[in-house]
Amino acid sequence: MAYNFKLTIEYDGSNYHGWQKQKKDRTIQEEIENAIFKITRNQVVLAGSGRTDAGVHAFNQTAHFFCNTHIEAKNLGRAINSVVPNDIIIKKCVRMDDTFHARYDVKSKVYHYRILNRETPSAICRQYAWFIPKKLHVDAMKAAACHLPGTKDFKAFEATGSPRSSTIRRIINAELSVKDKGYLIFEIKGEGFLRYMVRNIVGTLVGVGAGKITPDDFKNIIASRDRSLAGRTAPACGLFLMHVNY
Amino acid sequence: MAYNFKLTIEYDGSNYHGWQKQKKDRTIQEEIENAIFKITRNQVVLAGSGRTDAGVHAFNQTAHFFCNTHIEAKNLGRAINSVVPNDIIIKKCVRMDDTFHARYDVKSKVYHYRILNRETPSAICRQYAWFIPKKLHVDAMKAAACHLPGTKDFKAFEATGSPRSSTIRRIINAELSVKDKGYLIFEIKGEGFLRYMVRNIVGTLVGVGAGKITPDDFKNIIASRDRSLAGRTAPACGLFLMHVNY
Repeated sequence: MAYNFKLTIEYDGSNYHGWQKQKKDRTIQEEIENAIFKITRNQVVLAGSGRTDAGVHAFNQTAHFFCNTHIEAKNLGRAINSVVPNDIIIKKCVRMDDTFHARYDVKSKVYHYRILNRETPSAICRQYAWFIPKKLHVDAMKAAACHLPGTKDFKAFEATGSPRSSTIRRIINAELSVKDKGYLIFEIKGEGFLRYMVRNIVGTLVGVGAGKITPDDFKNIIASRDRSLAGRTAPACGLFLMHVNY
Repeated sequence: MAYNFKLTIEYDGSNYHGWQKQKKDRTIQEEIENAIFKITRNQVVLAGSGRTDAGVHAFNQTAHFFCNTHIEAKNLGRAINSVVPNDIIIKKCVRMDDTFHARYDVKSKVYHYRILNRETPSAICRQYAWFIPKKLHVDAMKAAACHLPGTKDFKAFEATGSPRSSTIRRIINAELSVKDKGYLIFEIKGEGFLRYMVRNIVGTLVGVGAGKITPDDFKNIIASRDRSLAGRTAPACGLFLMHVNY
């Protein structure tokens, strides 16, 4: 009999071509599916809460899979950890009702985007932040970020060539904060996100911080639904999937 | 004419066999000396504030070198950055009096040691903390750390086989603090340190945290001057050279 297991997963995305299984490249989904196969001889399909792109990190990605095994959930989590590379960690493995679905049941997600805004880059955090040497106007960025919360059409921040049936999403909270040593953290919580949406928002916010556009322009870009008006896509390495809420 | 330059350097020690140049293995000193040679054709000797061992990181290591060049210090720093791998960053390059010596002139150094004390390891910080799953008694560790400050003979914490003429050192401050998400930071400031001293102190403090020895035992271990009574050497990956004061 197959049981439904939910995983909570931390990973360093630096050495992967994203979450989702591909024909050629190494992905996180594939590494974990292979580990489950080695342990249980079940060829499972691991359904993530959503994909993360190449180079994006996660502190608490979630996923579920059905598996015919009598191994207890906690022990199964440990066994997977002993097989996967150490840049992937199963933080939790629990048994769920058969109805639980890691993607369909998502209520909200929280992402962090880390910017290092100082004169010199960091050797230690080089794969975990977007380094921007030019001083950013943080107050203008904060003012712009205030235009994000609400149920809006975020088509301006959708990756080109990835049309969704609807580009309306609800953003619950979006906030920029200043940390030690030149780090800025942009936190965004939403019920759902379009492809590249967070990175496109951050790229556009950095345009505000650099003085190229105003907080009002930022508001107008959202209203325009025009990707070509928004800023560049921020690099993957600064993005962290922090929490998935059910 | 040769000028005296001082570098402030951040590095991720994960992929190096420590600071100091060796015959075979890759070291930080060697990478920077090679970069300076490529830029200035000067075969310099880079004198660090002290060595760091294989796998140890630095946010602000310091070093000096004499170089016959007319490149301005700031530009020389930038030029070195463009040549060294991106796990080494020159944060500052300034010209000093000829009398400045990066090791002899050190007044004090600050190290951090990071412990991750929770059930599951971290994928993202796997090379930047010592993972200890068993719950540590932080208050006992704090009490033990109180015995460190002062001018004392720290022979019990010296690496075996590395005798110094004197094993007396002055520790100015030593403190353990609890951070988010299971991280503990041990900060220690001293006028000088013996080889492996910080890592041996941390290994012994973890013995206190695990309930194997008491804070009073810790005090007695210092007094004993006996390395065999102290705990294991904590892994290199948790250690960070934070500041060198002149």
